[in-house]
Amino acid sequence: MSLVCLADFRAHAQELLCKSTWDFIDGGADDSVTRDENIAAFKRIRLRPRFLRDVSEVDTRTTIQGQEISAPICIAPTGFHCLTWPDGEMSTARAAQTADICYVTSTYASCTLEDIVSAAPRGLRWFQLYAQPDRLLNKQLIQRAESLGYKALVITVDVPVPGNRRRDVRNNLDLKANLLLKDLRSPKERYSTPHLQMTPIDPSMCWNDLSWFQSITQLPIILKGILTKEDAELAVRHNVQGIIVSNHGGRQLDGVAASIDALTEVVSAVAGKVEVYLDGGIRTGNDVLKALALGAKCVFVGRPILWGLAYKGEHGVQKVLNILKKEFHTSMSLTGCRSVAEINRNLVQFPRL
Amino acid sequence: MSLVCLADFRAHAQELLCKSTWDFIDGGADDSVTRDENIAAFKRIRLRPRFLRDVSEVDTRTTIQGQEISAPICIAPTGFHCLTWPDGEMSTARAAQTADICYVTSTYASCTLEDIVSAAPRGLRWFQLYAQPDRLLNKQLIQRAESLGYKALVITVDVPVPGNRRRDVRNNLDLKANLLLKDLRSPKERYSTPHLQMTPIDPSMCWNDLSWFQSITQLPIILKGILTKEDAELAVRHNVQGIIVSNHGGRQLDGVAASIDALTEVVSAVAGKVEVYLDGGIRTGNDVLKALALGAKCVFVGRPILWGLAYKGEHGVQKVLNILKKEFHTSMSLTGCRSVAEINRNLVQFPRL
Amino acid sequence: MSLVCLADFRAHAQELLCKSTWDFIDGGADDSVTRDENIAAFKRIRLRPRFLRDVSEVDTRTTIQGQEISAPICIAPTGFHCLTWPDGEMSTARAAQTADICYVTSTYASCTLEDIVSAAPRGLRWFQLYAQPDRLLNKQLIQRAESLGYKALVITVDVPVPGNRRRDVRNNLDLKANLLLKDLRSPKERYSTPHLQMTPIDPSMCWNDLSWFQSITQLPIILKGILTKEDAELAVRHNVQGIIVSNHGGRQLDGVAASIDALTEVVSAVAGKVEVYLDGGIRTGNDVLKALALGAKCVFVGRPILWGLAYKGEHGVQKVLNILKKEFHTSMSLTGCRSVAEINRNLVQFPRL
Amino acid sequence: MSLVCLADFRAHAQELLCKSTWDFIDGGADDSVTRDENIAAFKRIRLRPRFLRDVSEVDTRTTIQGQEISAPICIAPTGFHCLTWPDGEMSTARAAQTADICYVTSTYASCTLEDIVSAAPRGLRWFQLYAQPDRLLNKQLIQRAESLGYKALVITVDVPVPGNRRRDVRNNLDLKANLLLKDLRSPKERYSTPHLQMTPIDPSMCWNDLSWFQSITQLPIILKGILTKEDAELAVRHNVQGIIVSNHGGRQLDGVAASIDALTEVVSAVAGKVEVYLDGGIRTGNDVLKALALGAKCVFVGRPILWGLAYKGEHGVQKVLNILKKEFHTSMSLTGCRSVAEINRNLVQFPRL
Repeated sequence: MSLVCLADFRAHAQELLCKSTWDFIDGGADDSVTRDENIAAFKRIRLRPRFLRDVSEVDTRTTIQGQEISAPICIAPTGFHCLTWPDGEMSTARAAQTADICYVTSTYASCTLEDIVSAAPRGLRWFQLYAQPDRLLNKQLIQRAESLGYKALVITVDVPVPGNRRRDVRNNLDLKANLLLKDLRSPKERYSTPHLQMTPIDPSMCWNDLSWFQSITQLPIILKGILTKEDAELAVRHNVQGIIVSNHGGRQLDGVAASIDALTEVVSAVAGKVEVYLDGGIRTGNDVLKALALGAKCVFVGRPILWGLAYKGEHGVQKVLNILKKEFHTSMSLTGCRSVAEINRNLVQFPRL
Repeated sequence: MSLVCLADFRAHAQELLCKSTWDFIDGGADDSVTRDENIAAFKRIRLRPRFLRDVSEVDTRTTIQGQEISAPICIAPTGFHCLTWPDGEMSTARAAQTADICYVTSTYASCTLEDIVSAAPRGLRWFQLYAQPDRLLNKQLIQRAESLGYKALVITVDVPVPGNRRRDVRNNLDLKANLLLKDLRSPKERYSTPHLQMTPIDPSMCWNDLSWFQSITQLPIILKGILTKEDAELAVRHNVQGIIVSNHGGRQLDGVAASIDALTEVVSAVAGKVEVYLDGGIRTGNDVLKALALGAKCVFVGRPILWGLAYKGEHGVQKVLNILKKEFHTSMSLTGCRSVAEINRNLVQFPRL
Repeated sequence: MSLVCLADFRAHAQELLCKSTWDFIDGGADDSVTRDENIAAFKRIRLRPRFLRDVSEVDTRTTIQGQEISAPICIAPTGFHCLTWPDGEMSTARAAQTADICYVTSTYASCTLEDIVSAAPRGLRWFQLYAQPDRLLNKQLIQRAESLGYKALVITVDVPVPGNRRRDVRNNLDLKANLLLKDLRSPKERYSTPHLQMTPIDPSMCWNDLSWFQSITQLPIILKGILTKEDAELAVRHNVQGIIVSNHGGRQLDGVAASIDALTEVVSAVAGKVEVYLDGGIRTGNDVLKALALGAKCVFVGRPILWGLAYKGEHGVQKVLNILKKEFHTSMSLTGCRSVAEINRNLVQFPRL
Repeated sequence: MSLVCLADFRAHAQELLCKSTWDFIDGGADDSVTRDENIAAFKRIRLRPRFLRDVSEVDTRTTIQGQEISAPICIAPTGFHCLTWPDGEMSTARAAQTADICYVTSTYASCTLEDIVSAAPRGLRWFQLYAQPDRLLNKQLIQRAESLGYKALVITVDVPVPGNRRRDVRNNLDLKANLLLKDLRSPKERYSTPHLQMTPIDPSMCWNDLSWFQSITQLPIILKGILTKEDAELAVRHNVQGIIVSNHGGRQLDGVAASIDALTEVVSAVAGKVEVYLDGGIRTGNDVLKALALGAKCVFVGRPILWGLAYKGEHGVQKVLNILKKEFHTSMSLTGCRSVAEINRNLVQFPRL
């Protein structure tokens, strides 16, 4: 079967991967209400296309944190890429570099940051941090990333404790999986035998701790997982440089709003003071357009990247990104947007139901 | 099985046609959300019938652009009728002439305009244009149509680039199909071996280009594909004579409103200055009544005509049109409307949900 | 299987009856949207029960047009009862008399009015009229019914032309069915061989004709099929004594509101000047309670009576009526209503959706 | 299969139990609309999580009627536990004591109150009363419970008559079941052969009777089954100490609101004067959090306790309670609530639909 849309890659990955890996990637927390809402909420939004505007030239380029990317479609941090392709994040990084977009490397990458950078030295990359209870380990990780050329620090705020993913519990994931987590080991251990190691996350982290992070790095700090205006205002007040509106793909707290439904509240609250991004539920170019129309500066894509990896490693990820970028280009053409700057709130409406 | 409603013709056509042709006709863009919404939105609207009004005589006649038609039910432009019946648009034209309604011939007709006119010389016809990058070709096409007795020029605005129809991509439609497109070839080529030729459309066309079209033809100009009040106001300001509210049967930009849901916005914006028509989702006489109650002067029917062609050519199209006209007559009788002029906004409501 | 609710009788009847009869009874017009909405709309309404009110004695009795009935649950006019049970309406009439409720005999009864009255001489009955083009025939029918002790004349307004019931068209119902329509024949013909005869209905009847009906009978006149405030106001102005809010079980114009959704509009418009009744979608005692809370004086039940007839004739109808009356008694007890007079608008709400 | 959420226990119980017992436990009244709404309504509510708040210590403890419990998750009164596990309520009581939460013993317990207390002497327990027509029997029951250390009297108000549960009628439950109801017999009969005995309930009980109950016991009185502001205000005026918002698991009056949808109305009406609790539809820790955010002081769980009993008696109930408590702990952590006092109305919203 030819793979012509991201949903095709999902079906293909489900066939290729073993059940416990598929469940780990695909599962949501509890009843997966929010995971499914992420998709459904996009479908409820209607586009308002404008015509006769000369779209012979459409430019999808934009910037995030001052860096140009070829389209507002980047790679969200997800862990353990070696579960789906042998050299894991190295393939992901190469595909991102080719596509000229940003790849956010996860704390739970199965390759070392050094290997990832070597694989694609010219790519734009951000580093995502799960704050560890050991402050020194945080400092080492962040400064290592900074010195390797990572351009921003993404701190995930929605995992003070792990979400309740039933399929992983049923699969007894801790025992069976064979995950690599080299970055969180000491240099000595880093190249030892791989094994599963989801290190404890620091549940005590709070707003006041942000100043410590700001003191140890020059990187812009972006909070990932903000869903309310109250937290968005606190983020601005604590001088972060960006917010990723995200519900962790529905994997943390079930029953929260779809990320696209939470976006408007956060965008209003920050009032343009920092860049706002979104992940969760992006499956077509129209979804990208809707997110930008509602105020996102760019979107991040999670699970579809893993589907691409499972399909054909670097080339699979490239194919996923190319489809999404091509669809987004078509979406812009069909709504009369010649540049990303022309995408605005008038392009969308919520339907009468 | 007897065919008693348009849905029966759909089921029948799906059995008769080869997969790639069926997919080409039936498919929508991307996830086909809008294609399905076109149908669902009609079902959400409620009729408010009036009784005891003497409906012993019900007259379905009306006019479009000053020409009388037997009912406000005409044939939307669709391409490649030879895919579903050997002599294609010639059968369609004959059925339209018998039904005394308007047939809009597509730029992508598989028969020549001359053959279509010869087949049904007394029928009311409009010509639909996909603007070509070559201005001369546009001029030749339009003037040829005008001299053949076509009564209006319908310019499609919602295809600056082709929509993303996954089923056609999967079927590799470009290679397998065997489509006839005689009108877009030079006179010499016109009768050569048929082959698929979807000529490039002009993505640069914009509002200012309308005056050029107005300078080369006396025909009233009707824009097809307008979905917003902003574009409707621009259309009026650029002196067009009509608007067809349409989302191209859900085949261009997925995620736009159902055409019946966009109708009210456009009707309000034009404030009676030009005639407004609708296509998309018409499957019963009640749908026709709802569209007229919300302000459409007439409706255009697309896919069901192809289902009729596939069934029995001219006689199949006649049967489809007769069912729809008869149903519309019944709808008028059961709501107390003795003439099309009596159909008004009070006949419909949107349900409490 | 024991039959414990009306839905059980439906399933049973579907097994017992031949396809064309089942389709005739069960079918709705066009897509059957309204037929299904009649059921769904009841399910969307929420009850607000009141407790601790001493419901040791609950009285379901009420009156319609001044006549006492044992519960506000009566039998709607439906035609051709001999299709489902040999002696047809005679069984229906006996069950209604036993239940002490009103039975509305249809113009399309398969038994004569005389036989129906003989079968159950003490029952309360109303006569439903499909106005015939021949005024004399109307006069004879009405005066015959009046002299036989019928207590009201129900004039159906929503059939100026027959609805479009696809299943009947597919089944070629006119030819195959073997229906009895004795009342519409001359006395001489009345006892001749039965055959299908749906006589033409008068589509020209209008508001001004009501005075003629009022001039030939002393019976209160009730209009069946009113769905809008405009028609409800006209009905009051033309001095009718009652309105049955009805969409003909979804068999006439598809796409109108569920009858329970139209009830409030009609009740508001008549402002207590005449009694308002409802049919369409009543399947449980809670449905009866909801209809009364929204202003209906009583409800009429159509298809479930035919299911009861199909099950066991008179005893089947009795069982259907007993279940519904018992459920309604329970509904009153569980909402703290000791008499029908205590049922009011505060008992219901429409849910937040 | 490992049992990782309450839904797993339901599936397991359905396999283990005989059909008539399963139907008795699982069934709702009439069409079970309200039973299913109890679940669906929770899924429609969205959580608004707050992050970066130091949730290294999360305390789920709270109090009801002044008594501390380990979490706001208690056991609702349900009858006939011996149907699902040999020593029935004795196992339930032991599990509740271990979990340090409150167990509300039903009038329809299949074990005697004395046996239940002996089984778990240190547990917090309330006694639920179905008021009997015989006042003396009520007095004996209540005073026996009080002397055995029960801490509150829960009077069920929503069963003036039994609900209409079709599956039980179909199963002819009265004849087949083998239920134990020792408490409602005289001391002499109490240990005789068990048999089904659902004693008649007093339908005449009304608000004025509450003073008699208050005169014979020192226990706080809690009304179970209130769903409207009107009844909530009457409850406060009659000096009760608490209200359980409940629709009896959808087993009494079908068509009432989901209990979580009725909660807000009741909470507003009582304005903090008495504690308000909720049962109905609690299946996850998020549901508990939503109920508390909307004003419940604690929730009661019904059917899942029976599923736990069916699985492994005392240990099954413990497992159910542990899962729910653990999930609730996670829900608090992921919304930034460090204590039950921090759970408030800002944590929830109803989605735009």
